[in-house]
Formats: sequence, structure tokens, C-alpha cells
Amino acid sequence: MPHPIQHSAHLLGIAGLTPEQVLPYLDLAESYALLSRSRTPPRDVLRGKTVINLFFEDSTRTRTSFELAGKRLGADVVNMTVATSSVNKGETLLDTASTLNAMRCDLLVIRHAQSGAPALLAQKVEASVVNAGDGMHEHPTQALLDALTIRRHFGRFEGLEVAICGDIAHSRVARSDILLLRLLGARIRLAGPPTLLPSAFGKMAGVTIHRDMDEAVTGADVVMCLRVQRERMGAGLIPSTREYFALFGLDQRRLGLARDHAIVMHPGPMNRGVEIASEVADSRQSVISEQVEMGVAVRMAVLDRLSRSRRNHHA
Amino acid sequence: MPHPIQHSAHLLGIAGLTPEQVLPYLDLAESYALLSRSRTPPRDVLRGKTVINLFFEDSTRTRTSFELAGKRLGADVVNMTVATSSVNKGETLLDTASTLNAMRCDLLVIRHAQSGAPALLAQKVEASVVNAGDGMHEHPTQALLDALTIRRHFGRFEGLEVAICGDIAHSRVARSDILLLRLLGARIRLAGPPTLLPSAFGKMAGVTIHRDMDEAVTGADVVMCLRVQRERMGAGLIPSTREYFALFGLDQRRLGLARDHAIVMHPGPMNRGVEIASEVADSRQSVISEQVEMGVAVRMAVLDRLSRSRRNHHA
Amino acid sequence: MPHPIQHSAHLLGIAGLTPEQVLPYLDLAESYALLSRSRTPPRDVLRGKTVINLFFEDSTRTRTSFELAGKRLGADVVNMTVATSSVNKGETLLDTASTLNAMRCDLLVIRHAQSGAPALLAQKVEASVVNAGDGMHEHPTQALLDALTIRRHFGRFEGLEVAICGDIAHSRVARSDILLLRLLGARIRLAGPPTLLPSAFGKMAGVTIHRDMDEAVTGADVVMCLRVQRERMGAGLIPSTREYFALFGLDQRRLGLARDHAIVMHPGPMNRGVEIASEVADSRQSVISEQVEMGVAVRMAVLDRLSRSRRNHHA
Repeated sequence: MPHPIQHSAHLLGIAGLTPEQVLPYLDLAESYALLSRSRTPPRDVLRGKTVINLFFEDSTRTRTSFELAGKRLGADVVNMTVATSSVNKGETLLDTASTLNAMRCDLLVIRHAQSGAPALLAQKVEASVVNAGDGMHEHPTQALLDALTIRRHFGRFEGLEVAICGDIAHSRVARSDILLLRLLGARIRLAGPPTLLPSAFGKMAGVTIHRDMDEAVTGADVVMCLRVQRERMGAGLIPSTREYFALFGLDQRRLGLARDHAIVMHPGPMNRGVEIASEVADSRQSVISEQVEMGVAVRMAVLDRLSRSRRNHHA
Repeated sequence: MPHPIQHSAHLLGIAGLTPEQVLPYLDLAESYALLSRSRTPPRDVLRGKTVINLFFEDSTRTRTSFELAGKRLGADVVNMTVATSSVNKGETLLDTASTLNAMRCDLLVIRHAQSGAPALLAQKVEASVVNAGDGMHEHPTQALLDALTIRRHFGRFEGLEVAICGDIAHSRVARSDILLLRLLGARIRLAGPPTLLPSAFGKMAGVTIHRDMDEAVTGADVVMCLRVQRERMGAGLIPSTREYFALFGLDQRRLGLARDHAIVMHPGPMNRGVEIASEVADSRQSVISEQVEMGVAVRMAVLDRLSRSRRNHHA
Repeated sequence: MPHPIQHSAHLLGIAGLTPEQVLPYLDLAESYALLSRSRTPPRDVLRGKTVINLFFEDSTRTRTSFELAGKRLGADVVNMTVATSSVNKGETLLDTASTLNAMRCDLLVIRHAQSGAPALLAQKVEASVVNAGDGMHEHPTQALLDALTIRRHFGRFEGLEVAICGDIAHSRVARSDILLLRLLGARIRLAGPPTLLPSAFGKMAGVTIHRDMDEAVTGADVVMCLRVQRERMGAGLIPSTREYFALFGLDQRRLGLARDHAIVMHPGPMNRGVEIASEVADSRQSVISEQVEMGVAVRMAVLDRLSRSRRNHHA
């Protein structure tokens, strides 16, 4: 991306980042994870700073993760859950941004149904903007926490085979994960119903597309299941949950095709019995809870680093 | 109950507790009530600790009481109000628990429409679980605050006659109060419409059941009115509010049948003119506001003690 | 107003205040605005104090402003957003007040659809009550932040011509602004559709009423646009948005009739293209963001001063 300074102040997506920009987040998050376990995160890192969670889509889980991250570093955290009104969305968004800016917000965490909304905000506010999920675009902190969880298990990304299964086309999680894991050296296998497999990623080096789930999982080091959005089913893009589970659900038999040391990931919340079998979700190979734990640590690292780059930027 | 260690880490109900386990909560709450009046609660008791208020039923009053209790002791308090979805309730609850556990929650306050939900959670999380009301089962902090309020007025429980009036059968407040006040030595009189009087309690020593409200109130030291749940009326279990008030409402005449020093209690929020007359609610005998004040103090004591038992447990 | 002591403990409205009571708020807010810019507000001003935001009407913007003000001064801030129930509103309000009082709330910020609700509460609670907007009555902190913004630009109020345009009749913002700016010496011009122009203000010294927007704006130092409440249109009180904009919208041509140094104000959120043109809202003459910034500073000043007067009052 053309504006390197922007990257030091915002986290809008994984696209355009270099490993040198990404790895410090993972390293800092790793140390925050340790401090969180011993209940001793440094409360003065964000003291006097204001973090606003501006959520235009409801997501208790992600909002709570950012809220805890901010509070554990001593910030004032304010939640704003805004029902997206039907009229003048774009305008309202910019006016909201302008309002928050005037309230002297330091870190603005935004989730929005429109792709590109965080990038638009970032041009209008002095605060550092963190994209907490925008439309079908990106969800960079999810990708960072996934990468950190993988690194903790394998110590590396080079040579790893990561199968990502489900509704790839509509998933900002898949998109950010593919970009980040490729950047760090892993190879990606995508599997899902033909209606939900984007052709764009098929042309990307190191990414293969599989219509057969078994094929994608065989020999994989990481199997990542995506959440089935039930509203897609109404639209006819996904068959019944029963048929979906038969074709693309991760059960013990399928997991048996992966490497013995393979780990199972899911961004949550899970539809048990749809994209993942309960026995797999609760198995020893599942690292789903660790993903949640790393989520708080990654968000602490992101808030901390963006706050520091701001300090330098404004100094 | 078979697991004594559990009691040192959770507060799931009054059933199974001994006076030796209960009285320290009252004593500590008494001292927190004093400190709150002078605005000097010790802010470092829960510093660095995370309290999550996980409310599957909306209750601004109880949630605020726990939130204030946590904040006054210096905890990071995060509110999660979750609309109970229609599908896979049990599963979702456990996955939510697992998520909160992974976020390193220390104290988990839960309200849920299903009886037993907090006990289920307690088996799955490392956090200390506080039951803030589960279905028609228990509401232990309400019972503790009621007991503390009574003790402040009479200095004892032995020999006190406590009348509890209204919808006993569906009330977790009544259930926890009966268990706790009996445990501490008070005698209980239950009064209400025959459809709402459970026969189970009638077999309990020290508990008498009265279909006539006047009979239950006569000579009582404490008269506790329960909130009429208006949805019960639709189900035909309760007559009209006017008829209910005539038969089981606490007005001045009825209160006159109690002892001169009798106190009037209500867990709130009140339906004035239904289960209690306004003149009684606002009378000098009413200790309803004191119950609210003791509510914060009791929750401070509960959060503090559970946090300490955790510390010992994990040390 | 007959109770001078009340004014030292509550902020219920502008009516009845003297310049000597108002100006200290502006002076203190001015200094808090500076401290907020340098991120160094004194965190111990409200340490140990409890601020409850009791909002019976949803207003993310105002609630956030008060929440930030409280947190930046170190208070425990608790949000209570209460859906106004249909039955027994008055009673519920007083019982809610009594509950918050018992929870040892120090500062109670209330927004309510009923005019006079904050004044009613103030009689029942020990906490200092701040009116954050009540029905069509008053919104005193909005008036204070508007006055502060004007003073920062002109250094005075005497001799200023302030045009307030739109739905004057239903606007608590207009009402509080008119009272405060008149008190401080400015002259007021009111412009709006005849159905929305109250005759009462026309009899007030220093206030003129204009059915023609151009006439009101010509030679004005300040042009303040009010938000069009879209629900008024359904009621037939306001013509179409297009027609409204033609008659009472502030566009560049109209703004050109004001003095060259004129500033443009709006309490937000804006309906761009209805009461204000986007080019005007984003112009160099617009001080709308500064109003938001002063909003937090004014609320810090109000919470601080009321808290101090309480301290003296109770000492």
C-alpha cells in the first residue's frame, strides 16, 4: 500500500503489510499472554487513553475481547453499539467519526457491515483505527490471533499446510487469514461448496482450491473451520445443515486424514454439528479456547503498539 | 452437597451451605456497607481482577448492583447481556463459558432463565461463579442481603417469625430466602394463592403454609412481599391485580396485624397497588431501600471472599 | 427559583440561574478542555465517586460524552439504559431513584421523555442530579457547551446576534440556549415554520421571531441550526425535507447573508441536506466539532462542581 505512515497509526487490514510489520504484534502478544495468565499486565500502558469500541454490528465476543484488552492496559474503554440506520449510512458514519474525534478518542475500534468503512474513518480521525471486521473485507486481529496460535504450536509457518474450510467467499476471517498465513510462509488449501469458493484466491501462489473436503484435509497441519452463516442457507447458497455437515463438516473420520499432530481451529461461535462435530471441537487437537485467549493478548498488543506509534507520530 | 471445595470457589445457591459458611459473608458485607457510606471502600481488593456480568435475562437493577460492587473494589467489570437464542441453548451456554474462561475471567456473575445453568458453568470454568438468579431455582445474593437487613434490625434470627407472601412456587427469591432464614434459625410462614403455594416447603420443619394472608401476617416480625410477575396473570394463575391486592396485598390494615416493630421487605421492583400498598412501601416500617444498599455490600463481600478462596485454591 | 441551595447541588435547567452561577462552569470547562487536549485531566477529582447515566431515551452521543467526562476525572461510571415501560411511569421513576440513592450514587445524569423528570428525581435522591435532556423542557449542558463555544470565538456575549433556526417549539436545546444566551447578554433571532415557532419567546426581551430565514440570518454572528426530528414530518408539522431545506436549510447563499466572521453551530446529529447543507457543515465557519469537544469539557466541569458543592453541603 502506498502510505507507510498510515500503517504505523492504524490496523485496517493485513493486505499490504510486510512480515516485519506483522511479527512484532505476535511477539508482543506472546508476552502479554504470559502476563495475563499471571494477572500482571502493566496497567499504565494506556493510562489516560480513551478506547472507543464502535460496533455497527453486534458482536459480544469480539467487543468483550477488545474491552478486556483495553481495560487490562489501563485505558478508559467506552462501548458504542450503534444500530445501522437505513438512511445516509455513509454520511452518518463520517459524522460519527468526526464526533468521536472531537471527544479526543485515542484508539477507535470499529466493526461495520460495509467493507472499507474503517479505512474511510481512518482518513477523517486523529485516533488510531483498528478494523474489528468490515463487511466481507478483512478482520486483521482475528488473523493475528490465528497466526499466533499456530506459531505457538509449530514454532514456524514455513512448510505448514493450512486447510480453511467452509464459506470462503463471504468470510473476512478467511480473507485476512489467507493473506497473513501466506505472507508468513504457510501454504493454504481452501475447501467449500462451489458457490462459496471465490476463484480469485485460486490464482494466488501457494493457495489451492478443493471441492472435496477430504482432499483438502489430507496431510494438513492445521484444519480451520469457518462458521456457517445461517442466513446464507436461506439464500440457497448452502444446502441443509445436515447435508453441509456430510460434505464439509469436520468429524473425527475427516480429522483422521490430517497429520497426527494437526490442530483444529474455529473463529467462533461454533455451530456444533454443522461445520464441526462436537467430538472434534472438544478433542485434544482443538485449540479453539487458545485462540480466544490469544485474541485478548493480540488486541492488547495492537492497542499498545498503535498507541506508541501515535505518540511518536505526534511527538 | 458432596463437593466442599466447590463452595469455597463458587456461590451457586444457599442449599447445602452451613451457618459457618454463610455468616462470614454477612459480617464482611456489614463492614463494606460502612465503608461505602463513607465512600472509602478499598480499591485494591480486586485490582487486576476481571468480573464479567453474564446476563441472559435483562435485569438492570441486579446487574448494576454487581457492577458497582466490582468497580468499588477496583475490578475490571465487563457487562455481557446476551439475548437467549432459540437454538442449542445448552451448547451455546457451555461454549460461552469456555470463551470467557479463555479470556481469563476471575469472577463470573450469571443470570439465566434455566435452573441449574450457573452450576453447569461452574463445572467448566476456572472462574468463580456467582449465581445472580437462575430460573425458579435460587438467587443466593438476594437471600444474603435479606438476611443482613434482618440482622441489622433484630440482631438475631432465632425466634423471628418471617412471613413471605405471594407467588412462592415460581420465586427463586422465596426459595433462597426460605433456605437461608431457616438455616439461621428464623421460622417461616408462607402465604399466597393456592395455585402458587408449593406443597414441598410445607413439609419442612419450621415452615408453615397459610392460605389466609391475615393469618400469616399476625404476630410476624418480618413481612416480605414478593413481586407479582404479570405474565402469571395471563396464564390464569393469578386473578386480577385488584383481586390479588384484596387477598394478598400488604396494606396498612394488614401490616397492623404484625408486631409493632415489624419490618416490611420487598426484593423490587415493586408493583405498587398490587402486592404492596404505596403507603406501606413508603412507611417508616419499610426497609426496602436498606435492602438495596445491603445488596451492593453483600455483592462486594461475595466477590471479595470468592476471589480470596480462589487465590488460596490456586496458590 | 425559590431554592438557592438546590442550585448548588443539581443542574436541572438554565431557568433561574444567574450569570454568577453559570460563568464558573464555563471557566472550569475551558481549563478542562486544555487538559483533555494534552491528555492530562486530573484522575483524582472524582475518584471513589459513582456517576450513573440513567437514560430513558437512547442517546449514544450524549451518554458517551458524560461517560468520558466521568471516567477522565476518575469516577466509577455505570450506564443504565431503561426502556420506558408503559405502566406507572411516574411511580417507576421514583422507585428507580430510590434504588439508585440506596446504591450510594453521587452524581445522577438523567435523560427522560417527560419534562420535569429530573426535577422530580432531585427531590428524592441525595445524589446531585444533572438534567441531560427532559422532554421539551431543558438540556442545560448543551446550552453551556454552546455558550462556551461562542465565547471562545468572540470573547463575549454582549451585542452578539444569534440566529436559532428550525423546530423551536419542540426543542429543549433551543429553550436552554435561548435562556442562557439571553442571560449572558446576546440577542436572539428565532426562525422556523410557523407551526414550530412558539409565541411565548416572542414576548421575551431581546428575542425576535422571523418567519423568513434570510431575515433571521442577515447580519448574524452565530447561526445555529436545530435537528429536524423526522417524526414531526409524519405529524404534518414539517413539509417534505426538500421543501424544508429550501425554506429553512442553511446553505452557502444564506450563510453569506450573515457576518463574514459568523460561525455555524448544530447540536448534532445532523440531517445533511435537510436543515444544513453539507458544504456548510464542513466549511471553515462550522464549529460543530468544537461543540462536541466542549461538550465533554463542560460535563467534566459540571460533574466536578456539583460533586464539590455536595461535599460542602454534606460536610
